[in-house]
Amino acid sequence: HDVQKSRDTRRVPINKVGVKDISYPIVVMDKLKKVQHTVARVNMYVDLPHQFKGTHMSRFVEILNSYREQIALDKMETMLEEMKQKLGASSAHLEIEFPYFIEKRAPVSGARSLMEYTCAFRASLNDTFDFVLEVRVPLTSLCPCSKELSRYGAHNQRSVMTVQVRYREFIWIEDLVTLMESCGSSPVYSLLKRQDEKFVTEQAFENPRFVEDMVREATLRLTADENISWFSVEAENFESIHNHSAYAAVERDKR
Amino acid sequence: HDVQKSRDTRRVPINKVGVKDISYPIVVMDKLKKVQHTVARVNMYVDLPHQFKGTHMSRFVEILNSYREQIALDKMETMLEEMKQKLGASSAHLEIEFPYFIEKRAPVSGARSLMEYTCAFRASLNDTFDFVLEVRVPLTSLCPCSKELSRYGAHNQRSVMTVQVRYREFIWIEDLVTLMESCGSSPVYSLLKRQDEKFVTEQAFENPRFVEDMVREATLRLTADENISWFSVEAENFESIHNHSAYAAVERDKR
Amino acid sequence: HDVQKSRDTRRVPINKVGVKDISYPIVVMDKLKKVQHTVARVNMYVDLPHQFKGTHMSRFVEILNSYREQIALDKMETMLEEMKQKLGASSAHLEIEFPYFIEKRAPVSGARSLMEYTCAFRASLNDTFDFVLEVRVPLTSLCPCSKELSRYGAHNQRSVMTVQVRYREFIWIEDLVTLMESCGSSPVYSLLKRQDEKFVTEQAFENPRFVEDMVREATLRLTADENISWFSVEAENFESIHNHSAYAAVERDKR
Amino acid sequence: HDVQKSRDTRRVPINKVGVKDISYPIVVMDKLKKVQHTVARVNMYVDLPHQFKGTHMSRFVEILNSYREQIALDKMETMLEEMKQKLGASSAHLEIEFPYFIEKRAPVSGARSLMEYTCAFRASLNDTFDFVLEVRVPLTSLCPCSKELSRYGAHNQRSVMTVQVRYREFIWIEDLVTLMESCGSSPVYSLLKRQDEKFVTEQAFENPRFVEDMVREATLRLTADENISWFSVEAENFESIHNHSAYAAVERDKR
Repeated sequence: HDVQKSRDTRRVPINKVGVKDISYPIVVMDKLKKVQHTVARVNMYVDLPHQFKGTHMSRFVEILNSYREQIALDKMETMLEEMKQKLGASSAHLEIEFPYFIEKRAPVSGARSLMEYTCAFRASLNDTFDFVLEVRVPLTSLCPCSKELSRYGAHNQRSVMTVQVRYREFIWIEDLVTLMESCGSSPVYSLLKRQDEKFVTEQAFENPRFVEDMVREATLRLTADENISWFSVEAENFESIHNHSAYAAVERDKR
Repeated sequence: HDVQKSRDTRRVPINKVGVKDISYPIVVMDKLKKVQHTVARVNMYVDLPHQFKGTHMSRFVEILNSYREQIALDKMETMLEEMKQKLGASSAHLEIEFPYFIEKRAPVSGARSLMEYTCAFRASLNDTFDFVLEVRVPLTSLCPCSKELSRYGAHNQRSVMTVQVRYREFIWIEDLVTLMESCGSSPVYSLLKRQDEKFVTEQAFENPRFVEDMVREATLRLTADENISWFSVEAENFESIHNHSAYAAVERDKR
Repeated sequence: HDVQKSRDTRRVPINKVGVKDISYPIVVMDKLKKVQHTVARVNMYVDLPHQFKGTHMSRFVEILNSYREQIALDKMETMLEEMKQKLGASSAHLEIEFPYFIEKRAPVSGARSLMEYTCAFRASLNDTFDFVLEVRVPLTSLCPCSKELSRYGAHNQRSVMTVQVRYREFIWIEDLVTLMESCGSSPVYSLLKRQDEKFVTEQAFENPRFVEDMVREATLRLTADENISWFSVEAENFESIHNHSAYAAVERDKR
Repeated sequence: HDVQKSRDTRRVPINKVGVKDISYPIVVMDKLKKVQHTVARVNMYVDLPHQFKGTHMSRFVEILNSYREQIALDKMETMLEEMKQKLGASSAHLEIEFPYFIEKRAPVSGARSLMEYTCAFRASLNDTFDFVLEVRVPLTSLCPCSKELSRYGAHNQRSVMTVQVRYREFIWIEDLVTLMESCGSSPVYSLLKRQDEKFVTEQAFENPRFVEDMVREATLRLTADENISWFSVEAENFESIHNHSAYAAVERDKR
């Protein structure tokens, strides 16, 4: 008989049960090229009523396998609906994290290369559908305090900003990246020629930003965007003068 | 002048700002040996009102440095109070994650060795003080379905259960570990002699547990313990027949 | 002027200099589907003679960008040749690590799913070309000692075997994976139905293997294969009864 | 009977077999405070002749447990000798990696705090004893090219240098750290007051260093030190203008 279906008498419903950290090749939508192949790390969970002993783990993988060529924002709700139905659950959760690449042109030479942005789709469905888009954007930050104090130079470093948004109308990853890249002292690039390196060095020096400034700039832009209904934004500076990070975070519900 | 103190006109208060991922040697309380030396990864944040441009990052490190020899549960509120005061903030957050070692005796031979449990203190103070104790406990889990289906054997694997608790009276890490170690098919050990290996193999076979069973057993024990006012418990099985994990989670507020 | 080209007087030649941990989407050869899209982590280095102050980091990224759609074994030497030439170097090193997916059928039901194998190409060129193919293969291992000692059951766990080979004629990743998957107690799968779970549980119980057995089985197979001229093989068991690993390694040069 | 001792007929000797990634609290020597408590990640291996089926994994943990309060350079050979003897092996390998903390004073204010340096002891014994001391030292690096090209500022970032040495007479971790910290544009600190931040910013601007310069400076110092008989040194810059690293490495055998 089916052990998972057998009756459980402990009267403990389970919030989330499923598969975690499964690595799978997927295809996502790309603003310029229509589609983009990437590799995802996926979590899939449902709730389990108290009277059932176990869920059916293999069904999660079957669903993932059948949708993997069409992982798009507009498929998330369908996948969750199928998870609820095939697992006999009243709520379902889907988390898909993947590297996403955007072609960028160096600011002066125009040299093209690809930049990686780690993205995640975090979706849930019980009676209503909830979707959060997450993007991690690397940046340069240059310290305003160090610039003001010092006779020359200013310490700067790589930073990463993590933004999560809920929105009304569809939004492209590319557009969210553009919005975030304006929040630091300078964007970063995979490929910079000498004239580009001069440009980004000077740009950073002209735009000193604390970690506090970065989340505030993002807050202003995300608040002004009427399509965004909720957001959370974090900035982390991998300080060049320390072996630890500076960190700031803002969350705002506009609903 | 002090750039951080200068006036900010963007009208954006910041939820959390501070230092992240600083590694520091600390001393924590130990039930048997009074104190235990370990190495922590620490995050320290405060809020920042909209009118100030920046916080003073160095003060966090000064506070950490002054308390590091006495990181005990009863010092968390004092540290947070000092963070609020020295940073002029209305809320403060402190996260301290560290490996904690407990001497265990092998079940038959009694051979002694040390087992590592990753612990975290997650504390906040605004008007009220909030404290969460987190412990990660490795275990063996043996699959009930595999045992029932198969003529002999059953797949089993290393699991980790992560428990977070809020409580009324002081609780020892050691006691929370003991409670959790009874939730899997068998505890794990650093050192097992031949007779011990026989014992834990048979014990696991006699106690098959799904990931669902493990969080349910924990839920029963944590619900029965009147000292626990809130808990969250997760189980993750690093499946021996897959390259991904099985996962289950329950959260329950008893207040 | 060009700082990198300026004369260095410290008389210290540098063994390796270049770019490390750049993430890039690539296309690799696939035995069944011709090509496979994946995402790589890439290191590219050259040597630097003592008289030059620096190398030109942007040229590495330009070369990577131009070859990324055709990362095949037969392109490694060409890429290295171009690195040597464009950087004016006498030796070049290229390391490309990526997840590679192979469709597997469950052993009884035949259910199809994709399994991830982390692969790496490690290539160097000075006067001669050297190429090492590396594949990490997850497996189930079941302990012979635990099986013999215990009245029933036997502890088992997920293992990973890492094989590196130098070879004479072209070799497919798929074939190396097949060879390695026969060295443990059972292969692992992404998707197993009930009848498959019974099969792999019993198969593992019938084929107990120490970590020592796994590297020995691999050694026998790789020694018998005349196409392999050198190999290194490691096995690591994420022990289900401990919180640490058991490990074994063999290296053999057949040249 | 003892499965591990049973006869193996495959005629495959094993280079290394043992326990990997065991976490253990240890006590190491400290130049100023005599001893320092820390937490190590330990690997212990021996060779295994072809005629034996398996090694005895529990003996490694027993040896580690008995020496853990006295992990000093002068105990490495004794531990390896005991591993060889208790496991009946002709070679033994011991790797101990741990965070080590040194009190540093900020360059102007003199404010004291602790800096973490990840260290490793890598020791082997067959007929002769071999010991490598490894230290990872975080630093600031400021780009000479960016400084020269730009009207103001220069990109800088956190770097880490990893040095491995073989030596003749005993050497303190503290002294090796001091030597390495002079190789970058500036040391890094856990705690810097405003006057210190001005100092390190200007110091870095006055000492621009490519990743190539950093390994060359280290090479000059390590070559001049007659106590060092062999070394390997790497520098990695977590570039503030890219999302990847710049890297350089030199290895030199002076024997």
